[in-house]
Amino acid sequence: MTETLSDIGEFGLIDRIHTLIQSEGIQAPGLVLGIGDDTASIRPQEGYEVLVTCDSLIEGRHYLADHTTAYDLGRRAMIVNISDIGAMGGAPLYALVSLGLRADTPVSDIEQIYRGFMKELAPFQATIIGGNIAKTEEANFIDITLLGEAEKGKIVRRSTARSGDAILVTGFPGQALAGLLLLRETDQPEKLRDNPLVLAYTTPSHKAREGHAVAKSGCAHAMIDTSDGFLADLGHICDESGVGAILVQQNLPLNDDLRQAAAKLDQDPHEFIMKDSDDYELIITCSKDNIRMIRAAIAEVSKTLVTEVGHITEDKDQIKLRLPDGRERHLQLQGWDHFKR
Amino acid sequence: MTETLSDIGEFGLIDRIHTLIQSEGIQAPGLVLGIGDDTASIRPQEGYEVLVTCDSLIEGRHYLADHTTAYDLGRRAMIVNISDIGAMGGAPLYALVSLGLRADTPVSDIEQIYRGFMKELAPFQATIIGGNIAKTEEANFIDITLLGEAEKGKIVRRSTARSGDAILVTGFPGQALAGLLLLRETDQPEKLRDNPLVLAYTTPSHKAREGHAVAKSGCAHAMIDTSDGFLADLGHICDESGVGAILVQQNLPLNDDLRQAAAKLDQDPHEFIMKDSDDYELIITCSKDNIRMIRAAIAEVSKTLVTEVGHITEDKDQIKLRLPDGRERHLQLQGWDHFKR
Repeated sequence: MTETLSDIGEFGLIDRIHTLIQSEGIQAPGLVLGIGDDTASIRPQEGYEVLVTCDSLIEGRHYLADHTTAYDLGRRAMIVNISDIGAMGGAPLYALVSLGLRADTPVSDIEQIYRGFMKELAPFQATIIGGNIAKTEEANFIDITLLGEAEKGKIVRRSTARSGDAILVTGFPGQALAGLLLLRETDQPEKLRDNPLVLAYTTPSHKAREGHAVAKSGCAHAMIDTSDGFLADLGHICDESGVGAILVQQNLPLNDDLRQAAAKLDQDPHEFIMKDSDDYELIITCSKDNIRMIRAAIAEVSKTLVTEVGHITEDKDQIKLRLPDGRERHLQLQGWDHFKR
Repeated sequence: MTETLSDIGEFGLIDRIHTLIQSEGIQAPGLVLGIGDDTASIRPQEGYEVLVTCDSLIEGRHYLADHTTAYDLGRRAMIVNISDIGAMGGAPLYALVSLGLRADTPVSDIEQIYRGFMKELAPFQATIIGGNIAKTEEANFIDITLLGEAEKGKIVRRSTARSGDAILVTGFPGQALAGLLLLRETDQPEKLRDNPLVLAYTTPSHKAREGHAVAKSGCAHAMIDTSDGFLADLGHICDESGVGAILVQQNLPLNDDLRQAAAKLDQDPHEFIMKDSDDYELIITCSKDNIRMIRAAIAEVSKTLVTEVGHITEDKDQIKLRLPDGRERHLQLQGWDHFKR
C-alpha cells in the first residue's frame, strides 16, 4: 500500500523532509540555523541587500495533479520564485516552503516535490531553511518564500524605465502558451511530450542568472520577468515608471516552432507573445548606448537570445504596436487576472 | 451588493491593499523596497541576524469563517508568526502575506484581515513588504512569512537545554483549550463572549516582547513557544536537546478561571495545560542561578506571570510528572498532529 501522510503524521513528515534536505541538499553560506527550531536564522553578507519574494501554486488552479509529476511540480514552484529574485538582479539563497496537504497525499510525492525544489536551488548553492505543513481538506498548495541577495544599490526595479530606453526581451515569450494550446487541441498528448513548445509549458525555466548578470553590469534601467505575460509585464514597467512603449511587430522574436504552431492552430504567431504565457523570460530597458553591454553581460552566462523589440516613450501607459505597413495599433493589456469575471 | 474579489480583480485588490498599507501601516527601518516590484528588498542592520519563519491558517481547519471576524483572523495569523520570532529572542520587522482566496470573498473582509495584521505589527514598528494572491476554489488560506532580527549570537534555540536547568513557563497555558471546550459545550456562545478563557481562545496573544527580553538578558539556555501545546513543546526541547524533564504538578500554573472551567467541564484542570491549546506562551530553561535574572528581564517589559514548573534531567525524552504524593507518572506527548489517523 502507498504510504501516505496519515501513516507517518506531521512530525514524521518533518523528520523525513529534514533528513532528505540534509542528505541531498546543499549547505548555503551564511546560514546560522536551518530547519528544526521556531525560526531559521541567517547572517547576510555585508554590503548586500536581502531580497524576499513569495509565490504559490494551487492544485487545480496552477497545476493539475494528473498532468504533472511531483518532481516537475516542485521544480516549477521554485522556478517562479527564482525568476522573481533574478528579475531584481539578485541570486537566490534560502527558501521556506509552506505546504497545504491532504492526509491521503503519498509521502513519496512530497519527497519528489522537495527533490524538484532542490534541483532548482542547487546551481545557486541555495537551500531550504524552513517551512510549515498544514492540513487541507481539498486542494493541495505549495507556497514558497525565497530569499536572495544583491549587492547594495545594484537591484533593478520595474519603476525606473526612461523615455527613449530600448526594450529588450530574452528568449521566445509565448512558447509555453503555444505548448498549452497544442496540448489542449490534441487527443494524444503523450505524442507531444517532447515537443519543444510543450516542454516549455510542462518544464519551464527561468532567466535568473541572466538577470543577475544584467544587474551586475549596472547598464539596465528597469527589469521584470514575464510571469504575467510579456505585454502585461511590459505594462507593469510602463505603469510603475510613468511611461509608455512602442513595439515593432517585425522585431518580436518568433522561431520556427512558434510559426508552425500558429499555422496549425490557425493563429497569428504574434498573439502568443502578447497573451499570458508561463515563460519567465526577462524584459529589460536600457539606454540605447548600453544595449551592447547588456548583450555582452548575458552572453557571459548563457546563449539566451536577446532581442530589441521597441522603445520606451513619454506617453504614460500607452503601449502601441507598429505594424509592417507603418500603422500603429493601440494594445490592450491582456495579462491574466485570476479573479475578474 | 457586497463588493467581492471578482468585481475588482487581482490587480484591483493589490492596489487596494497597497493603498491601505501606505495609509495605515508603518514604514519599517531598513526597508529599501516594499510592495510593487518582483521582490521586496531590505538592508539588515549590521551586527544582527535575520530570523525567518512561516505559518499558515486554513479555513475550516484552523478557523471557521462563521466563528471569527476577519479582523481577529488577521491578528491571529500574524500572532502565530510573531510568537515564533519572539521564541527565538528576536523582534519582528517585515511580513510577506500569501493569500489563497475564493472569487466571492468580500473585499472588505480582506481589508479587515490586513488591518488585523497591521494592528499586531505596529507595536514592533514592523510592516508588510510583499506577498501574493492566488485564487482557490474551496477553502481560503493565509500564509505569512515573517522576518525579524536578533543581535548576532543572541538567539535562544530549543536544542540547548541542559540537565539541571529550571523549566519556566509564562502565563497560563491551557486557557485557550478551556475556552474552546466551554464554547463547544454551550448552546449560547454569545453569552460567553467576554469570558477570559473564551477570549484567550478567540483573541490569543503572544509573548514576543518577553522572549526578546529573555534573549537580551543572555541568561536562558533554551526557549520555545507553546504553539503545539505546553507538553508537546517541552517535548521538542527535550528531543532536540537530548534531555528529559520532571514537572511538579503542584507548581503548574492554574488560575481561578481554569479551576472553575475544570469543575464545570468535570475535568482535572492540569489536563488543560498538558493538551494542545492555542496559547503561545513561552517555555524557558535556564540554570537555577539565573531564574531571578530571567524574571527581572521579563518584568521590565510586562507583568506576565513566570512560573518555575520543574527541571531538566539527563533521561533523554523522558518527561515525568511528580504528583503531590511523591509518585512520578510518565507523560505521553499529546501535541496535536494534524495528519495522524
